[in-house]
Amino acid sequence: MGAVKTKRMPRAVREQQMLDAAVRIFGRRGYMAASMDEIAELAGVSKPLVYLYLNSKEDLFTACIRREAAALTEAVRTGVRADLPADRQLWDGLRAFFAHTAEHPDGWSVLHLQARTHGEPFVGEVRSMREEIVAFVTRLIAVAAREAHQDPHLAEHEVGGLAEALVGAAESLAAWANATPGVTARQAAATLMNFAWAGLGNLMRGRPWVPPTGEA
Amino acid sequence: MGAVKTKRMPRAVREQQMLDAAVRIFGRRGYMAASMDEIAELAGVSKPLVYLYLNSKEDLFTACIRREAAALTEAVRTGVRADLPADRQLWDGLRAFFAHTAEHPDGWSVLHLQARTHGEPFVGEVRSMREEIVAFVTRLIAVAAREAHQDPHLAEHEVGGLAEALVGAAESLAAWANATPGVTARQAAATLMNFAWAGLGNLMRGRPWVPPTGEA
Repeated sequence: MGAVKTKRMPRAVREQQMLDAAVRIFGRRGYMAASMDEIAELAGVSKPLVYLYLNSKEDLFTACIRREAAALTEAVRTGVRADLPADRQLWDGLRAFFAHTAEHPDGWSVLHLQARTHGEPFVGEVRSMREEIVAFVTRLIAVAAREAHQDPHLAEHEVGGLAEALVGAAESLAAWANATPGVTARQAAATLMNFAWAGLGNLMRGRPWVPPTGEA
Repeated sequence: MGAVKTKRMPRAVREQQMLDAAVRIFGRRGYMAASMDEIAELAGVSKPLVYLYLNSKEDLFTACIRREAAALTEAVRTGVRADLPADRQLWDGLRAFFAHTAEHPDGWSVLHLQARTHGEPFVGEVRSMREEIVAFVTRLIAVAAREAHQDPHLAEHEVGGLAEALVGAAESLAAWANATPGVTARQAAATLMNFAWAGLGNLMRGRPWVPPTGEA
């Protein structure tokens, strides 16, 4: 490491090293407790250099959120092929999502927990990413409903609700999978696919769960 | 209101009025932007009286989280009868949950959004409530699996994962239902019940979703 530290390297490379270190420290310690000293040390640079490149702790945290949000949406996007059937797209998307959050637990902690627990402007950064993912899932469910020729029965707000439910379930499950030893990304994806698709699948085929009769 | 303001009333009643006002302001403005002046004015009391009773803005916010968390878990608990079948318990629990979050949108905003966006100790208060609800849903799914005689096939961590997915879906859907005009509590409960039970129901009967063959 000593030789690497003193070597001259392009600004972009140094900046990525700083962001790598920052995501790790922010993800593990939280925004408030994270120290710029520790981030600089882990990145193998001086603290003034971190401030020169990233300006402030707030800007550094915002840069972390943006990088991790872009990496996660990119992972899901490239994991899915639009020409495949909707259940295959959902399965591929879920596997890509859980594989990425398992490989980048600190990044996921920054997005799911840290960014949401320290108010604006950080909350806003995560909100845009989430809206993009909900829109993707909404399209997928609408396509599946069309494929199953059930569109008149699945109202627009029902599709929106199902997409919100699925995204909320995935967020919750990713945090749980990362905190539970022995749960693989594939298992987490399969759990949610079972939960979602067997349910959505029945719904698409016009076989909803039926409420008990005679209730208030 | 003028006559009420000057009337003498028991401390417990005054305190509940302050908490009512605080939940409304915290839920709508957020913790940082909420002003103690506005809370006191809405409660119809002087600001020094709020500090005398609730000590500080932080303590007032903590008291709001505790009261709203207790009310929500109580609503779900009393909505469910342990002697009914598991799918009926889940349906009753979901209706109680969505009815309560729809009737108390500011309280739900405090629990789901505000308490989680301002770090410890607030995050910890919400975590205990969430753990209690996850434990309840986990028991329900385990009972349903036993009823369906499928317990050997539904491993303990699978049940835990399903409970996490269901709770995450409910949280996400409640926030969406409150923000979407025309979506009733019953509709939100039915959407999630369809999503969850038709899926869980298939799973219980040993009919999981099957991944495509021949994939990597």
